[in-house]
Amino acid sequence: MPLTLDEVREQDRQDPLAPFRSRFALPQGTIYLDGNSLGAQPSAAVGAVDGLMAQWRDSLIQGWNQGWFDAPERLGDRLAPLLGAAPGEVLVTDTITHNIFKLLGYIVEGQGITEGQERARPVILSEGGNFPTDGYIAQGFCRFGGFEHRVVPEGEALDTYLDARVAAVVLSQVHYRTGRLRDMAAITRQVHASGAEVIWDLAHSAGALPVDLTACGVRYAVGCSYKYLNGGPGAPAFLYVRHDCQGQAWQPLSGWLGHAAPFAFEADYDPAPGISRFRTGTHSPLAFAALEASLTLWQEVDLGQLRRKSQRLIELFRESLSDCLGEHGISDITPEEAQRGSQVGLVEREHGYAIVQALIARGVIGDYREPGLMRFGFAPLYLSHEDVWRAAQHLREVLAEGEYLALRFQQRGAVT
Amino acid sequence: MPLTLDEVREQDRQDPLAPFRSRFALPQGTIYLDGNSLGAQPSAAVGAVDGLMAQWRDSLIQGWNQGWFDAPERLGDRLAPLLGAAPGEVLVTDTITHNIFKLLGYIVEGQGITEGQERARPVILSEGGNFPTDGYIAQGFCRFGGFEHRVVPEGEALDTYLDARVAAVVLSQVHYRTGRLRDMAAITRQVHASGAEVIWDLAHSAGALPVDLTACGVRYAVGCSYKYLNGGPGAPAFLYVRHDCQGQAWQPLSGWLGHAAPFAFEADYDPAPGISRFRTGTHSPLAFAALEASLTLWQEVDLGQLRRKSQRLIELFRESLSDCLGEHGISDITPEEAQRGSQVGLVEREHGYAIVQALIARGVIGDYREPGLMRFGFAPLYLSHEDVWRAAQHLREVLAEGEYLALRFQQRGAVT
Repeated sequence: MPLTLDEVREQDRQDPLAPFRSRFALPQGTIYLDGNSLGAQPSAAVGAVDGLMAQWRDSLIQGWNQGWFDAPERLGDRLAPLLGAAPGEVLVTDTITHNIFKLLGYIVEGQGITEGQERARPVILSEGGNFPTDGYIAQGFCRFGGFEHRVVPEGEALDTYLDARVAAVVLSQVHYRTGRLRDMAAITRQVHASGAEVIWDLAHSAGALPVDLTACGVRYAVGCSYKYLNGGPGAPAFLYVRHDCQGQAWQPLSGWLGHAAPFAFEADYDPAPGISRFRTGTHSPLAFAALEASLTLWQEVDLGQLRRKSQRLIELFRESLSDCLGEHGISDITPEEAQRGSQVGLVEREHGYAIVQALIARGVIGDYREPGLMRFGFAPLYLSHEDVWRAAQHLREVLAEGEYLALRFQQRGAVT
Repeated sequence: MPLTLDEVREQDRQDPLAPFRSRFALPQGTIYLDGNSLGAQPSAAVGAVDGLMAQWRDSLIQGWNQGWFDAPERLGDRLAPLLGAAPGEVLVTDTITHNIFKLLGYIVEGQGITEGQERARPVILSEGGNFPTDGYIAQGFCRFGGFEHRVVPEGEALDTYLDARVAAVVLSQVHYRTGRLRDMAAITRQVHASGAEVIWDLAHSAGALPVDLTACGVRYAVGCSYKYLNGGPGAPAFLYVRHDCQGQAWQPLSGWLGHAAPFAFEADYDPAPGISRFRTGTHSPLAFAALEASLTLWQEVDLGQLRRKSQRLIELFRESLSDCLGEHGISDITPEEAQRGSQVGLVEREHGYAIVQALIARGVIGDYREPGLMRFGFAPLYLSHEDVWRAAQHLREVLAEGEYLALRFQQRGAVT
C-alpha cells in the first residue's frame, strides 16, 4: 500500500539525518536523484573555495607551506574513517584511472617479476560491464606492460577465471549500472587465496554505505569523491593501500611529489615512505578546498543511520511505483537490500532516455546509461522522504500521460 | 651606471604592457619575483571560480553539458597561439608528470615495437639537472616499460648520446635552475635526424617568451600553466602533439574521457581521434575555470612586447646589482640574452637560503633551490620597472647590512 504525503512527512520528522539537508545548496524546484553521478554542493564549499582564492592572492607561493602541500595526506586521513581505514592508509590524488594504473604497476612490481624473465602471473582480470574507465585503463596497462587482459562476464563468480596466472583483479564494490553490492570480504579472501591481489573500486560505495576495508581484509582500493562524497565536479580521487602493503615497490607514475625529499631536487627517484609515494605531479589546492569542506561535514555523519535511510528511500521509491512499472514495460533491476548500494535501476530499452528527459523537464534529475538504463541515486544527506515520494509521483504521471513520447527522437547529450 | 628612480618611472610610463598590472591582484607591500614558480592571480579568476561554483550548485550534473566536458580542448585552443600551435594540437590535462608518461608511451608504441621482439630503440634520454619530475617520470617509465634511462650531463650537447638506440629524449626549453634557453629548432632537427623523438618541456617558457613549436618543427611538448601563465596553484598542465603525429598509437593512461565515444560505455577502449585521446579520467572544471580566466587575458598580450620587457627587467635588475655581488661572494649564473628565459640566477652556497629569507622579510619574494641558487623570475605582465629597481635596492641593503646572518640557521621550509 503506497504511503500518503502525510505519512512520508512524518518519516521526515523522525529522520535523524534530516538536519544535514540545510547544509547543502540545492536549486529550487529540483529533486536531485543523481548524487551517484555528481553530488550536490555543501554550502561550506563556497567559503572554502573563496578562502583558497584569497590565499593564492595574498600568500602566493607561500600558500604551499600553509596547508596546500600536505592536502593529499590530510584529506586522506579525513576520508579514512568512512572507509574503515586507518590514518596513513588513504591518499587523495589524481583520478580513478590514474590510481588503478599506479596500483596495478605497484602490485606487479611487488610480485617480483624482473626484466627478461617470463612472468609467472601475466594476467589482469576485470569484470565485464564494470565502469568503462576501470576496464579501459586495465587494457592500457596490459598493452603497455605486456600483460594479458581477461574479462569475467558481468555478475559471474570469479572461480573459473582465478587461476595461478592472474596477477591482479579490478572489481567494483557496487556496480555502476545494476547497483549490485559485491561481498567484498569473501571475494578478497578468495583472490588472496589464489595468490593474486584485488583492487576494489569504491566509486559507488564511499559515502553511500558503510565501507570497512580493514574488516574485509582489503589491501588495495580506489574511489572518487565527486559522487556521494560531494567533493565537487571532477574532485580528486583517492587510493587506499593497507599499512603492511606499503613500501614494497615503485609505482610507475613516479612524479616529484611522490619523492622521499621532493625539495632536495635529487637526480634519482627515491619513493617516499608510506602512502605519499602514490603522489605524482602538482595537485590543485582549489579542487582540494571544496572536497575538504565536504569531508569536514562527513565527520558528523553516522554511517549506520546513512545506510538505514538510504535503504528506506529506495524502498519508498520502489513501493510507490510497484503497481505501474510492468504495464509500461519497465523492469526494475535493483537487487535486494543486502546486495545493493544506494541506487535504483529501471530498464526500458526503447523509451528509457526519453522518460529520463521528461522527468528532467519536471525537475526530477536522474540519469540514463546505455542501453536502456534509468538510474536513480539516493543520497541520504540531502534527500527527504517527501522528495522521493514526489519523484515517484512525477514518474507515474510521466508514464501515465505519455509525456516522454514527444521526446523520444531528441538527440542524446553527452551527459544526462 | 645604475638608473635613478625617476629614470625607471619614466620607463614604466613608456611601457606598453603597463596596463596589464591592474588586471592582477597583488598583495600590498610585496614585490613578487616568483612568478616562475606560481603566477600571481588575475582578478578575473575570482569571478570565473565563483561562476563555476554557482554552476555546480544550480546546474548540478548538467554542468557537464555546459562547457565543462570540452574544457581540455577549448583551453588547449586558447593556449595554442602562445605556443605557435594550431587549433586541435594542444590539450589541457593532468600534470607534466602524467603527460610525459603518456607521450613516452605513445611514442614508443608508435615506433612499432611489438611484444616478444627485441626493441630496436630501448633507451630514453633525459638531461641531468633538468626539473626533477621530468627525470623521475622517465625513470618510472623505463623501469615499468623495460627501457634503459640515460642521462646527458647538464648543458652538454646531445651529440655523443644520441645514437640509434635512443627512442626519445626529454628536454626543457628553458632550464629551471640556470634559466638557459635551448635552441629548440636545431636540437629538434638533430633528434629527428637520428630517428628519435623529443618531448619539449615548456614549463619555464610558455608565457615567459614567444614559443613557436610549428617553426621549430616540434612534434611533442608538455608544460604547466601555474607559472608564467598564471592559471593558479596546481592548475592543469598541457600537452602538444603536432597534427600529423596524432592518431598513430594508444597512450598508456587510456581513461574513459580519452575514448572515441565515452558515453557509449563500450567494453573496449577505442582511442578518440585527434588530441582528445590524451585525456584520461574526469578533470576538475573548478581548476579549469581559473585557468580559462587567465588564458582569456593572454589573448590580448603581444608576445614580442612581452619578450622585450622581460629582457629589459632582467638587465635592470642585474645592472642595479653589478657592483655589489662580487664582494659578497655571489656569482650571477644568468646566461646572455639570446640564451636565456625570463629569470635571474644568483648563487651563494653558504648563505643563499638566508638571503632569500631576508628578502622575503622585506616583501621581496624570490625562491631558493638547492644547492645555493637564489632564483628571481620576471613576469612582465604584473611587474613594473620600479618594482625591479626596488627589489635590487632591497637586495643591496640585505647584503650591505648582513641581515641574512641572523637567518642562516633557520629551518628550511618545504617550499620557499
